[in-house]
Amino acid sequence: MDRPRHFEDYVLGETRSTYGRTITETDFVVHAGHTGDFFPHHMDAEAMKATPFGQRIAHGTMTFAIGIGLTASEINPLAFTYGYERLRFPKPVFIGDTIHTELTITGLDPDPKRATHGRITEQVRVLNQRGETVLACDHIYLAERRG
Amino acid sequence: MDRPRHFEDYVLGETRSTYGRTITETDFVVHAGHTGDFFPHHMDAEAMKATPFGQRIAHGTMTFAIGIGLTASEINPLAFTYGYERLRFPKPVFIGDTIHTELTITGLDPDPKRATHGRITEQVRVLNQRGETVLACDHIYLAERRG
Amino acid sequence: MDRPRHFEDYVLGETRSTYGRTITETDFVVHAGHTGDFFPHHMDAEAMKATPFGQRIAHGTMTFAIGIGLTASEINPLAFTYGYERLRFPKPVFIGDTIHTELTITGLDPDPKRATHGRITEQVRVLNQRGETVLACDHIYLAERRG
Amino acid sequence: MDRPRHFEDYVLGETRSTYGRTITETDFVVHAGHTGDFFPHHMDAEAMKATPFGQRIAHGTMTFAIGIGLTASEINPLAFTYGYERLRFPKPVFIGDTIHTELTITGLDPDPKRATHGRITEQVRVLNQRGETVLACDHIYLAERRG
Amino acid sequence: MDRPRHFEDYVLGETRSTYGRTITETDFVVHAGHTGDFFPHHMDAEAMKATPFGQRIAHGTMTFAIGIGLTASEINPLAFTYGYERLRFPKPVFIGDTIHTELTITGLDPDPKRATHGRITEQVRVLNQRGETVLACDHIYLAERRG
Amino acid sequence: MDRPRHFEDYVLGETRSTYGRTITETDFVVHAGHTGDFFPHHMDAEAMKATPFGQRIAHGTMTFAIGIGLTASEINPLAFTYGYERLRFPKPVFIGDTIHTELTITGLDPDPKRATHGRITEQVRVLNQRGETVLACDHIYLAERRG
Repeated sequence: MDRPRHFEDYVLGETRSTYGRTITETDFVVHAGHTGDFFPHHMDAEAMKATPFGQRIAHGTMTFAIGIGLTASEINPLAFTYGYERLRFPKPVFIGDTIHTELTITGLDPDPKRATHGRITEQVRVLNQRGETVLACDHIYLAERRG
Repeated sequence: MDRPRHFEDYVLGETRSTYGRTITETDFVVHAGHTGDFFPHHMDAEAMKATPFGQRIAHGTMTFAIGIGLTASEINPLAFTYGYERLRFPKPVFIGDTIHTELTITGLDPDPKRATHGRITEQVRVLNQRGETVLACDHIYLAERRG
Repeated sequence: MDRPRHFEDYVLGETRSTYGRTITETDFVVHAGHTGDFFPHHMDAEAMKATPFGQRIAHGTMTFAIGIGLTASEINPLAFTYGYERLRFPKPVFIGDTIHTELTITGLDPDPKRATHGRITEQVRVLNQRGETVLACDHIYLAERRG
Repeated sequence: MDRPRHFEDYVLGETRSTYGRTITETDFVVHAGHTGDFFPHHMDAEAMKATPFGQRIAHGTMTFAIGIGLTASEINPLAFTYGYERLRFPKPVFIGDTIHTELTITGLDPDPKRATHGRITEQVRVLNQRGETVLACDHIYLAERRG
Repeated sequence: MDRPRHFEDYVLGETRSTYGRTITETDFVVHAGHTGDFFPHHMDAEAMKATPFGQRIAHGTMTFAIGIGLTASEINPLAFTYGYERLRFPKPVFIGDTIHTELTITGLDPDPKRATHGRITEQVRVLNQRGETVLACDHIYLAERRG
Repeated sequence: MDRPRHFEDYVLGETRSTYGRTITETDFVVHAGHTGDFFPHHMDAEAMKATPFGQRIAHGTMTFAIGIGLTASEINPLAFTYGYERLRFPKPVFIGDTIHTELTITGLDPDPKRATHGRITEQVRVLNQRGETVLACDHIYLAERRG
């Protein structure tokens, strides 16, 4: 679980893929209740019948929270999150879709503020069971340089 | 609740502020259970005593989901989300902190792809009870232009 | 969100209608778990097949809690709840039904105990997607009189 | 659990008392998430410090749902709910209060519409650990008359 | 609810059966979130299509927790749990199955350590709507002997 | 995450230890709501003040479900659970305790029914922050023998 890795241990193009998880109606209800966002897009099956989607669509914040949560299988005690860039939701997530997350190291740069750390850009792609990308972003984190 | 606004109705510098919400231990446990991220940072009070934080800290994805959720009080049927930029977590959120969200329109631009829409940049700041920013990002959304 | 209104600002016959919300199996399970009422009427699909309903029916307390919750979109800081009268459940709520709430001001009376306040009677109707009333009651609240 | 009782089996003045249950911060958060009512009265500890209550207070709908839920320990297959009258909330419920429910049969009347049934009025009192009534109402239900 | 029984009040072969409860997709999601076990067996409908089960299967710990929970309808203040033996899961539980629990007293023995108590062995069987046993174990508890 | 291991890969005395998790009041409430067991031992802080425990104690089924859940970090696709033996709860778990699980391989035996598999006995110990064992059992599982 703990897997210490220095900045120098990361490799451009390195990939990791998570288990899948079926997004259920329960997840929709839990997320609405967790965030307080009960907009009809997510909660009113009748109203959504009349839209191009034809059905309820997931909160973007849920796809983000669960998509990132799926990657939480090991801890690098030498790294910490700096932020996220270019968060996009190219396709909706529907009840019953099964998503998983694919990670690729796409940038390894010096950190402009900290000589002791390097900056890692990890491309995040959440895909559904049809192989469509439903969420894309870049996760930026910093890892300690080896001595 | 529904409040239709065209792109031309938005004003640079316009602000909106939400109600506050106290982030509870329950929210930590619900978010871990919702996302599957049970890392000790969020769940192990004993282990966190030995860190500079001294206690459990919120998942960044939770601060984002609840911070954005707090803003879900009215729907503009003429607008939709494009994405989020520069998502950062300048300060940790602890159990018992009370957060609210402040929104400011900071950009009104033509949409490069759609002549029918304009692109709105809304600065998002989630603040705690001490006035510290615990989350910052830009929300980018598109709104229909008036005829 | 905060919308201060004095007793004199309310008008007989004034109406308000909420967004819709689809009542899910999740809501049934959450309500059972929240209240501790796991009676077969709400939880045992097999046993309910043999009844005239043919399926599980919602807890009355859930229809009340969600039906009232749907109305929680603005706060009148000059008013507070006195109570509820004539709470009835004319039709069952089934999993998958979509409900919304309609409010009508049906009474504006002096408060017998407080000269400073008036008593407002608001008729509450929760309706399903077929337009049937599934819950009816009167919400009684008090609002400050103007100076 | 199933305990069939005819209308004639009920006795005026008969009482029943439930187990106690401590109302936790978790219950507040669950109820807000279940109903969508995130008003600061229930969710914002900072804002409530400045009020006469000094702290968050429970949703009335929660006190009702849990107070009634506590009574759900046996089923009379010969009876069904008609409705509730005079629902009042004489005192607030705070996080950490322990409540239980006391029931007293206060009315046994013919049902005006159904010769086959009698109408039972059961006084409901939810009390806290200081013996204060935090919720009062009358539960009206109908039970089959003995052949 | 409280039903005090001494060791001598228990009878070999005595049985008790609980209400039924339909195990929902919500229960799967809640249990994963409660325990942190998001293994694909329970959470990934796509991956499970390719297995002999053809669908998601319940966590064994959930069948145990809910199967035992169903029996929690009365308290013997003179008894306490010693442990469980031979916990087995002969059949999977699927979403939509309705389970109930059957209890049989199969052993009444002196407690080797406490002359004041007797040891009761209660056979636990959780059955689904087809009468198949999905969980079996022995619950061992101790009850006070009559003076 | 997937880590295929044949029976022959297991070693007597091999140990594994999990992350810690603080058991919160939320977990108590979630478990009661998940299982339907709202007995005062777990839910009534007032009543428990008068007992030797002085406070609410965790459901045994929760300590089991979370204690086992903590171990769900990798999947051996060549193994499956046979059952659990000698489940005991030597000490209570209180709100605020931090638990983790320690696993030791204590038995490697031929499976009496399947020549293709071996039977693994894994001792499970759930410990609190004071190093006290709060749950003990043996997990029995079967793993494929190497060709």
